[in-house]
Amino acid sequence: MSKMLEEIRQQPEALERTLAAGLKAIERFRRKVEGQRPRLVVLAARGTSDNAAQFGRYLLEITTGIPVSLSAPSVFTLYGGGVDLRGVLVVAISQSGESTDINLVMEHGRQQGALTVGITNEPRSTLAGLAEFTLLVRAGKEKSVAATKTYTGQILMFYLLAYALGARIRLDDLRRIPEWTAAGLELDPHIAAICQRYRFMEHAVVVGRGINYSNALEFSLKLKETCYVVAEGFSSADFMHGPIAMVEPSFPIFAFAPPGVTWKSTREILDRLRQLKAETLIITDRGNREAASLPGPGICLPVNLRKRGGRPEELFTPIPYIVPAQLFAARLAEEKGLNPDQPRTLSKVTRTI
Amino acid sequence: MSKMLEEIRQQPEALERTLAAGLKAIERFRRKVEGQRPRLVVLAARGTSDNAAQFGRYLLEITTGIPVSLSAPSVFTLYGGGVDLRGVLVVAISQSGESTDINLVMEHGRQQGALTVGITNEPRSTLAGLAEFTLLVRAGKEKSVAATKTYTGQILMFYLLAYALGARIRLDDLRRIPEWTAAGLELDPHIAAICQRYRFMEHAVVVGRGINYSNALEFSLKLKETCYVVAEGFSSADFMHGPIAMVEPSFPIFAFAPPGVTWKSTREILDRLRQLKAETLIITDRGNREAASLPGPGICLPVNLRKRGGRPEELFTPIPYIVPAQLFAARLAEEKGLNPDQPRTLSKVTRTI
Repeated sequence: MSKMLEEIRQQPEALERTLAAGLKAIERFRRKVEGQRPRLVVLAARGTSDNAAQFGRYLLEITTGIPVSLSAPSVFTLYGGGVDLRGVLVVAISQSGESTDINLVMEHGRQQGALTVGITNEPRSTLAGLAEFTLLVRAGKEKSVAATKTYTGQILMFYLLAYALGARIRLDDLRRIPEWTAAGLELDPHIAAICQRYRFMEHAVVVGRGINYSNALEFSLKLKETCYVVAEGFSSADFMHGPIAMVEPSFPIFAFAPPGVTWKSTREILDRLRQLKAETLIITDRGNREAASLPGPGICLPVNLRKRGGRPEELFTPIPYIVPAQLFAARLAEEKGLNPDQPRTLSKVTRTI
Repeated sequence: MSKMLEEIRQQPEALERTLAAGLKAIERFRRKVEGQRPRLVVLAARGTSDNAAQFGRYLLEITTGIPVSLSAPSVFTLYGGGVDLRGVLVVAISQSGESTDINLVMEHGRQQGALTVGITNEPRSTLAGLAEFTLLVRAGKEKSVAATKTYTGQILMFYLLAYALGARIRLDDLRRIPEWTAAGLELDPHIAAICQRYRFMEHAVVVGRGINYSNALEFSLKLKETCYVVAEGFSSADFMHGPIAMVEPSFPIFAFAPPGVTWKSTREILDRLRQLKAETLIITDRGNREAASLPGPGICLPVNLRKRGGRPEELFTPIPYIVPAQLFAARLAEEKGLNPDQPRTLSKVTRTI
């Protein structure tokens, strides 16, 4: 079994551990920001961590109303830009905590007296040393080059950050995430069977909207890294603004289709793709009956993530929804005879300047 | 000749017209923001306009130090998020001025008393009516679905915005842009000849860094829309964080390689791609002698865009550099027997909610 698959399976436990420790760690941060709300949140990350940051951006804007900017590290590293970070909350996200450029953004923040948070898997990393507050993802050492359990751990940390910044997030909902994640793992045999169909897929598109846009980016990154498929992730709204022209009959498209406020527009896009005779595989859950009953192959999480009364409904779908996508990438890599733990050309830590 | 090619050729004149009128229009805005610097700039756009916004984000952060956030419209439209836009400069960019969701972000800004700017080609559009200040791209009616002259016009407007916000941008440099753009058009026969080689290309990657990242996104969008090539644009730094695993011998990669602070890292990536035996086509200018003398096919603008003394050197490269890329997409579409003015599935105005 690949380390990637092992690490995918460790996620319910890793999330439970991360949440238990995170709930304690976040209190200190919550007290710090009480009464001094940041005017802006700047997120700095690369690769999978940047996809988690994309999630964080939606979550924080939706639930706290604080504007969020995803940092362009080269503004700091190459152009010597003096972006004004006073009164800003700077959050750096890095599995290893050793991304040189991300740490430079962090240093820049500290120099200007910004509040700084590091989300990392490594307590003794440079990032953990630089950040005023460290939120430690307790996923255990990630051995596969393809990140999985650190992505979901990072997402979990963003719920805690949002909570600390005043979002109405019920901690009881967070406590259910490990169980929903475990439910996703049950789909492994189903997904392994589906993957055979995609053995010779050379390119693909992944679409997601709003809070699941980050998952579209992350699924497509996994397909690129571990299966060498030329796969691009899109917000489904952006996809309609041009890229849909690529779609010809049989073009493979993966779509995240949670219940909730994004479903209407997602359904419209699925209808359009059906007219174009694209081959669409959707990831949904039992709470979205309409999606679950669409014709054709699909992946349906054996849980109901529709929240009655609660808003926004799909707030907690990103972690459970990425699990089948991770399984798909790991199983497809296997099917293709590739080793997802050691993609050609890559190493675990990338130091950019 | 396709309308797309016609409109590409209209750019020097369109830019000249846009600049002349823009220089007058911007003064009113400059007086307004004098002494009341926005705490944050929020940019809202989709498609090609969003690529121009990506340029704007780098330019404004580098030259003014004001943090910039690229808006996620669904936060406003689907999630009813009340993102705090007080004291913010909201800039909406839309060729037609009729993107429903972008206009909603604008309305939200006005309701909160944000300063609002609309960059559009259409003086009588909804966007122009909503914005406190309209910066009119005087490109003339854009008939091709594939946007070209409005992209460069929008970029030009961002220079003016940066200038108004206090950036040290010499207007004399701006006045040279139309002439550099005209120089790019001279490459048309060379590019038409190169395109034949790519007749059967099915996928590709475009890389650019920093101020030219937007061009990587825009070139890849043009390849998708007009040539149906599965092409993804990357910041070259992000490309090294995973996606490079896709690269096998002969994988086609297009790279923007201006002189200046990004060249060192771009050269490292080109070296790595050569080791992987990828097929790389670079776009550069006479000011980057090292890039211009690399072996293999290349596109070299017949101008010298290296600025001695000035910083950052590549600040004015994005407009001239996109011209050969636009020509490439138009000529490759022709080579493939496709009509770039009417890509399948697309219409000129996309209304998203």
